[in-house]
Amino acid sequence: MANEFLVARAFSPTNIALAKYWGKRDLNLNLPQNGSLSVTLDGLGSTTQVEFSSQTNEDHFFLNGVEQFAPSALKKVKTVLDILRSRKGISLRARVESQNNFPTGAGLASSASGLSALTLAASAALNLNLSKENLSEIARFGSGSACRSFLGGYVEWKKGEKPDGTDSVAKSVADEKHWPLSVMIIVINEKSKLYPSTDAMELTRETSPYFASWVEFAESQIPHIRKSIIERDFKSLAQLSEENCIKMHASAMAASPPFLYWAPQTLEVMKRVWSLRQKGYRLFFTIDAGPNVVIFSDDPQWDKIQLEFKDFDTIKSRIGEGAKIL
Amino acid sequence: MANEFLVARAFSPTNIALAKYWGKRDLNLNLPQNGSLSVTLDGLGSTTQVEFSSQTNEDHFFLNGVEQFAPSALKKVKTVLDILRSRKGISLRARVESQNNFPTGAGLASSASGLSALTLAASAALNLNLSKENLSEIARFGSGSACRSFLGGYVEWKKGEKPDGTDSVAKSVADEKHWPLSVMIIVINEKSKLYPSTDAMELTRETSPYFASWVEFAESQIPHIRKSIIERDFKSLAQLSEENCIKMHASAMAASPPFLYWAPQTLEVMKRVWSLRQKGYRLFFTIDAGPNVVIFSDDPQWDKIQLEFKDFDTIKSRIGEGAKIL
Repeated sequence: MANEFLVARAFSPTNIALAKYWGKRDLNLNLPQNGSLSVTLDGLGSTTQVEFSSQTNEDHFFLNGVEQFAPSALKKVKTVLDILRSRKGISLRARVESQNNFPTGAGLASSASGLSALTLAASAALNLNLSKENLSEIARFGSGSACRSFLGGYVEWKKGEKPDGTDSVAKSVADEKHWPLSVMIIVINEKSKLYPSTDAMELTRETSPYFASWVEFAESQIPHIRKSIIERDFKSLAQLSEENCIKMHASAMAASPPFLYWAPQTLEVMKRVWSLRQKGYRLFFTIDAGPNVVIFSDDPQWDKIQLEFKDFDTIKSRIGEGAKIL
Repeated sequence: MANEFLVARAFSPTNIALAKYWGKRDLNLNLPQNGSLSVTLDGLGSTTQVEFSSQTNEDHFFLNGVEQFAPSALKKVKTVLDILRSRKGISLRARVESQNNFPTGAGLASSASGLSALTLAASAALNLNLSKENLSEIARFGSGSACRSFLGGYVEWKKGEKPDGTDSVAKSVADEKHWPLSVMIIVINEKSKLYPSTDAMELTRETSPYFASWVEFAESQIPHIRKSIIERDFKSLAQLSEENCIKMHASAMAASPPFLYWAPQTLEVMKRVWSLRQKGYRLFFTIDAGPNVVIFSDDPQWDKIQLEFKDFDTIKSRIGEGAKIL
């Protein structure tokens, strides 16, 4: 091989699901029980550089400047690198350096942006000419939700029907210009430890009596959420998203032991959102597997709405573009 | 009829379910989808006087000194009175005066104690010699949970198998002396309106995708909860009760619209209970259809546990006796 020093950098945003993914049907292929639908968040994400080189005989992974040795973190990175090396037919090891531009401990999922940025940077370094769909399929092996970060705007991760998972990929529902909603993340710090999401999903699948109904509900709701986005029907999207969020959490808290991700302030924010909506404001919330609340709005009085949450730490965002090579 | 002035008074305690009832299989007979199991709370309840008299041609119902005209409240009272009048073969109307000895707005269910006290007082006024089982069946028509207040200690409300509901009655699991647990009610005031429980149960049954699984789970858990009480197995009762509580709430919050009864402080108390248990203290919680939390303990350090909740309004209680004629 002529070139033994291959390097590229990519930025990938994080995303947050309105129709959530909580449960796998295949752990090896990382296939979801149901489809999910997310929005890509503008500006918040990971910048990742990948350098394949003959100078090293081990993969190294640095996150925010610190080398990572935890097997769970390394495994995700190596999984993606191995797939790409195998496509290229090389065995060079890589040095991966990733930086998240949102505060650590802000509770934002860094695996979605991190694994998608890694996939894009590594594929660029190897000069693999992969479509966004191909990239999404590969990133999925590292982190399910990462597959949704290659596209901007509103993105659907298809459940897929094929046993090999090649159709469990991200598809665009609408780009970021279609419906420029305002986004605000309410950052709620909590000391209680969070379970790794794969473990929590597996325990939910095994022990929650509501899991099967959750999966059926979640899959059936996707076309309605997609439609409300295409038609820019805010009231419908608000109701569907909140019900999806609450049912995902209800399924997880019905596990044994219960996975109860909400902090007291999480409920405070949820109820404040409902109270503002009763007053006529246009906003809704969603919550991932943690205490933070993400608020969406298309209200002309968005400035006024934001003031209602000024007693919390917040991060402003909007609907953004997908991952890109730097 | 010789005597046209028939009067009696009864006190009945409230009760709180560890294995919860949330959903009816027959609205007319007020039959539950699944059995439930409660503890009778010492000292907290309703004192009710019933006076049948030829002086009036209307039933009148006074609660805490104020005549009640709301059809929903009157209907429950008349339902019970009509059954008892029919058993006695009279048509005299009644004046019902009921007092709750717990603060209004404390969020304690007054229908359980109120309807059981009414049933006992009215049956005594009419000199009907009814067993506690008979009384529980009649009170059930007024308020499902009322049927559990005739007995002290640990009480099971059988789901029943007969179409006419005559076997959907209360049975003793163990009396109050069997296992004298400490009880503390954490009173959490919230302004948000509560739905009448029958309406909320019906909407949950109709719209929650988790309802069928809740019913199946709840019924299957009863023998285990009964066993943990009989064997005084605190760890087992703690785990079973909390999982029952959380799954009931999870089923209700999965309704459309979601019934989310927890206040931020409810979650604060739940997590504080978990944190104390991790430190080795013996306590657990349950929560009915409202924000209050009821804490149970068999810990010798109960005084110390109580101090951990001194920033809340609390009501102390213990496991008590059932309803009695005064």
